[in-house]
This record gives sequence, C-alpha cells and structure tokens, in this order.
Amino acid sequence: MEAELKQVLAQIHPLDDMAMDAAKAWQAKLAKPPGSLGKLEGISIQLAGITGKLQNRVETRRIIVLCADNGVVEEGVSCAPQSVTAAQAVNMTRRCTGMSALAKHFGDQVQVVDMGMVCPYNCPEILDRRIAAGTRNLAKEPAMTREQALRGILTGVALAEKAKQEGVEVIGVGEMGIGNTTTSSAVLAALTGAPVEDLTGRGGGISDESFVKKKQVIQQALRLHRPDREDPVDVLAKVGGFDLAAMCGVFLGAARCRLPVVIDGFISVVAALCAVRLCQEVKGYLFPSHASYEVGYALAVKEIGLAPWLLLNMRLGEGSGCPLAFQVLSAACAVMNGMATFEGASIDDGYLEDIRKGDHFSV
Amino acid sequence: MEAELKQVLAQIHPLDDMAMDAAKAWQAKLAKPPGSLGKLEGISIQLAGITGKLQNRVETRRIIVLCADNGVVEEGVSCAPQSVTAAQAVNMTRRCTGMSALAKHFGDQVQVVDMGMVCPYNCPEILDRRIAAGTRNLAKEPAMTREQALRGILTGVALAEKAKQEGVEVIGVGEMGIGNTTTSSAVLAALTGAPVEDLTGRGGGISDESFVKKKQVIQQALRLHRPDREDPVDVLAKVGGFDLAAMCGVFLGAARCRLPVVIDGFISVVAALCAVRLCQEVKGYLFPSHASYEVGYALAVKEIGLAPWLLLNMRLGEGSGCPLAFQVLSAACAVMNGMATFEGASIDDGYLEDIRKGDHFSV
Repeated sequence: MEAELKQVLAQIHPLDDMAMDAAKAWQAKLAKPPGSLGKLEGISIQLAGITGKLQNRVETRRIIVLCADNGVVEEGVSCAPQSVTAAQAVNMTRRCTGMSALAKHFGDQVQVVDMGMVCPYNCPEILDRRIAAGTRNLAKEPAMTREQALRGILTGVALAEKAKQEGVEVIGVGEMGIGNTTTSSAVLAALTGAPVEDLTGRGGGISDESFVKKKQVIQQALRLHRPDREDPVDVLAKVGGFDLAAMCGVFLGAARCRLPVVIDGFISVVAALCAVRLCQEVKGYLFPSHASYEVGYALAVKEIGLAPWLLLNMRLGEGSGCPLAFQVLSAACAVMNGMATFEGASIDDGYLEDIRKGDHFSV
Repeated sequence: MEAELKQVLAQIHPLDDMAMDAAKAWQAKLAKPPGSLGKLEGISIQLAGITGKLQNRVETRRIIVLCADNGVVEEGVSCAPQSVTAAQAVNMTRRCTGMSALAKHFGDQVQVVDMGMVCPYNCPEILDRRIAAGTRNLAKEPAMTREQALRGILTGVALAEKAKQEGVEVIGVGEMGIGNTTTSSAVLAALTGAPVEDLTGRGGGISDESFVKKKQVIQQALRLHRPDREDPVDVLAKVGGFDLAAMCGVFLGAARCRLPVVIDGFISVVAALCAVRLCQEVKGYLFPSHASYEVGYALAVKEIGLAPWLLLNMRLGEGSGCPLAFQVLSAACAVMNGMATFEGASIDDGYLEDIRKGDHFSV
C-alpha cells in the first residue's frame, strides 16, 4: 500500500496556469472595479485552474462523511457515549442532523461511510468501509497499524474518485466520531510541534475535569509514541483515527482527479493539513468554509495557508460548514458566468481605461 | 413629513420575547451540543422574534437597490463618471451586474429604484421615485433640504411596506451612486465623531490625489454645515444622499412591518446606523452580511453592535453581499425546521442529560 499511496501522490498535478490566466483576464473584463468582488474572483480563478475550464459549475455537490470510533474514549475525554457515533451516522442518512438538514435544504448529496464504528446499526444506506471496530486507545498503544492508516487513506482516495465518476462537481469532507477532537488535536500537535494547550478545545462540551484529562492524554500519547512529524502516515497511525485517515485520503483523491474540495471545521482541517504535508500541490484544490469555534482550527488553517469565508461560531462538525461554502463557490461561478463585461455594459471607455490603470487594489 | 416619520418610529416595536423563548427552547431540544451551530441558532431565534413564529422561511427574497447621484462628484472624489450610475442601474434590471448576477443565480428579486439619477435612461423596469436630478455639492452647500431627506426616508419606508404586501419574506438593501462612499464617510463621521481619516477609503479605486481630495472635501463639508449628530435627518440632509436617505427608510420600514432586513456593505451599513440612531428597536430586525473591504465598514457595523458573517474582501456595493447572506438566513431556517430533536434521534438519555447540564458554551 506504500507504493500505491506514492503513486497517488505522484499523480497530483499543479493547477492549470493557462486556464487561470484566461480566468484572470476574463475577470478584468467584467463590469466592476477590479478586485471589488474579492475572494469570489480568486475562487473563480482557482476553479479554472482545477478544471482547466473558464466557466465552471458546482451544481452536483457531495459531502462525504467519514464515521469511526476512537479507542481513546475509554480515558474519559468525551462527554458523549460511543453509541452516538453510529446513531448520528444513521440519522445523517435520514437528513435530520445539523449537516444533513442543511445538505437536504441546499440539495447536496450526503454519503455516509463507516470507517470503523463500534456500535451495531441497521442501515443499508451507510457505505461499509470498516477497517476495525474503532481504533485502539492511543493513551496506551498506537491507535492503529501503519497498514490500517494506509488503508484508511486509500479508501478516502477511492471515495473521491467514485464521486468524480458519478458526476460530482465539488466534494465536502465531514466526519462523525466521538473522541475525534482528541485525535485531531494530537495529530495537529504532532505535525506542528505547537503546544497541546494551544490547540486542544472542549469538543462537544466536556467538563473542566475531562478537559484537563484530555490534554494530559494527548501529551502522554505524543511522549509514548513519538510520531514522526515528517511522516503524516506515521502520525495518523499513532495518534489519529480511521475518520482522519480517510478524510486525508479524500483530499488527496480530489486533488488527483481534479475536483474542488471543501474543508469543514477542526477535524476536517487537520485531515487537510495531513494531505498537504503528504503533497504540497493538494493546496490548490482546497477551499475553506467556516472558522470553527473549536480552538486549534485557526492554527491548522493558517498552517495550510488558507483563511475561512464564514464567521458563524459553528463547532458541530459532521461537514456542517460545507453546504454554505458550496453556496459561496456557486456564487463565484455565477459571477464568472453571469456578469456583463465593460464592453457589454454600455460603460464608457474613458472609465474603462481609468479603471484598468487602477492598481490600488489586488484580488 | 416630520410627523409622518415620528409616527413610523413609534410603530417600530421590540422583538417578540415569547416567540424567542420558544425558539430557544426548541433549539435546546435539537440533537447537537448546545450552541454548536453558533450564529445559525441565534439567527433562527431572532427570526422568531421578528415574525412571532417558531418556524420561518426566507424563500421570497428581494434586494431593493436605491440609485441616486451625488453633486459632490464635481469635486473629483470619484474615478467613475456620473453616467455609470444610470448605466449600472439599467444593467441591474438585465441581471448582469455583480449583485444582480448573484441574485439571478440564487432566485432573489431585484427592485431597482431611481431616487434621483442625473443621466437619462430608458428602462421601464426602474421604479421612479426621483427626488431631484442628484443632490447638490456638499462641499459648497447642504446636499439636500430637510424636506428632501424626509421624503427620501419615507420613500424607503413605503418600499419596505410594498415588499411585505407583495409576499417578500426578507429584504436586502443595496445601492448604486457614483460618489456615495464620500457621502457615506461624511455621514458616518458626523454620526460618530470619528476622524475622517479612519473611515474614508478609496471607494471604486481612486488615485492618491483624489483620495486626499476626498478626505479634504468631507472635512470641509462637516466644518461648513455642522450637521447635528443627534439628528440623523439633519446629517443625511447636509452630507448624505438620496440613496442613503431611502436606504435608511427601508431599514425603518422593514422593522415597522416586521420583516428581516439584510445590510450589505459600507454604504448600506451607514444607512442602517442612521436607522438605528432614529430608533434603537430597529437593530432587532437587522442582519449583517459580509465584511466590506471598504474602510469605515468595520466602525459602522461595530457601532450598531453587529458582526459580519462573511469574510470575502468584497467592496462592490450594489447589494452584492445580500444573496449570500440570504443563504445564511435560509440555512438557519433549515436547521430550525429540519433537524431532529434528541428524542427523535435515538440518542440515549444519559447523554441528553449530560449535554443539557453543559454550560461551557453559549449561543
């Protein structure tokens, strides 16, 4: 599987410069002060770089939700019982959780994937990609083997390819897994070397006592397993989760098949950082969504070099930031595809010339 | 008209506390950690306070675009010729400007209103509410008479009422008017006493020379006319514009007929501040959209006590932030109307109890 991952990484190519230049030139012709549509302009240019086309659409959208349990919950780092993972995964297929209610409203597909949940459920709509019944307790032993981590990543890659084959135009990456803010903080600490204190939050809303415990557990795991920060697979295996590994794979897979992919909140952004660390070119395919209220998000998104579009103090996870981010992408396409040029807008040429000279703002 | 405005203000009532309490109680029942949907929760509660109903919808949306010219452009404070005001107003009816292309994409109505444009046009879709062919040059004389300012405000009030009668569920407030960042900075300076330096930007993208001139003109006008900061009508009359006066009126009218109303960028937020200064209760009916890149926006939105949802570095105006803000409002409704409660989500009661005890986060 090492070779297979290596091959995936080698097949991730940079954005299409020619298409981006054409998109920039087209943006400059649109009847508005240059740069006045801010990030909507940059997004439309980035989309052109991804697809190679000047005009794009993101009308077929899929949120891929990776669900898995984490052995570390036996340390008492979470306020919810492990049964919530499977219960909410099932509820997602019924479109009545936070993310899935939003997805239903906006017409987004939701694909719920079992990467290794502990509790039994009866729900044929959930895609079975189980690696094991949850990871091991990272406070005591590595969360998983390297082979399991690789299998998780390659599963994610395949899910992205499947989306592409099924006509999806943009992917969002969500998750469900009690205990996964603990694993995400651990992975982020391992990848960045930043203090555990600065990137660990209360997740679903734990008590003061559990919060102290959570930070101790992460520190203990990092000391015990010494994950190699230069090797994201090692980090994911030792202190990550099946959800994180598969999410990382979805980001890689989306980049390989040239699909735009949206990051949700804290867990999602940590998985995206793993993907970028495996291959810098992935960054060009990533789009942020909202600034998660979970501490640690800000560090991870900055580490990737992105800035969130939505400030809504959300921290639900599931992929709940994706539906609104999809609408932002859709808005960027609407501007690119629907606005008149200066020539078509009956705006006189003197102004056109003046405005083209203007270099007061950049996109 | 003074009496008429007084009557409008007296008819603006506070939000419905009972409906908001019911909405809060319902939010607490939804299957998610309390507060985890952040501002989407607060929005749904505010909407309940506005309409008096627990479940709301914002599927019929209208952006009202107030268009007017400003005499101050003869001072050379703008980079675009005055002809652009009418040209873009006409283009809005064709749905090919930035805002209107977005509105078309998202299915929002656009109502273009002539409050006093200078250049002739032939476009029956534009609603004629002309007060005069542009304002006077505020660098030399008051922009308009007090009667004209009152007429502008009351016109806006009537436009909001008309929207309500026509089944609109949410209003957005946009504008078009070369020179209106100059008037907006002047009004904001007059209302807050903040230094002109801190709240004047480059608008559509003027040269360094014009930028210096713009600030001088504003300072000169404030010294010359001494607008009364306790009297927003006086401020609007002396250093405002017909667009600003009417926009202020739309905010007042929306509050009077209990319609949610979305603020766009810099000019829109200054008009909203005028409305809030006329009647504090208006604030409950206001929703922000994006953080305009135009300096001055941040001060005005903070002065009202709101924080923007979208960080997209946009500074086009027209109402271009409204379509995406409408989608945020729509998302808040989808959560309120579509999510399962804990009881319906098969999540066990122990967790339910734990989570209800949790007070780590507030909405």
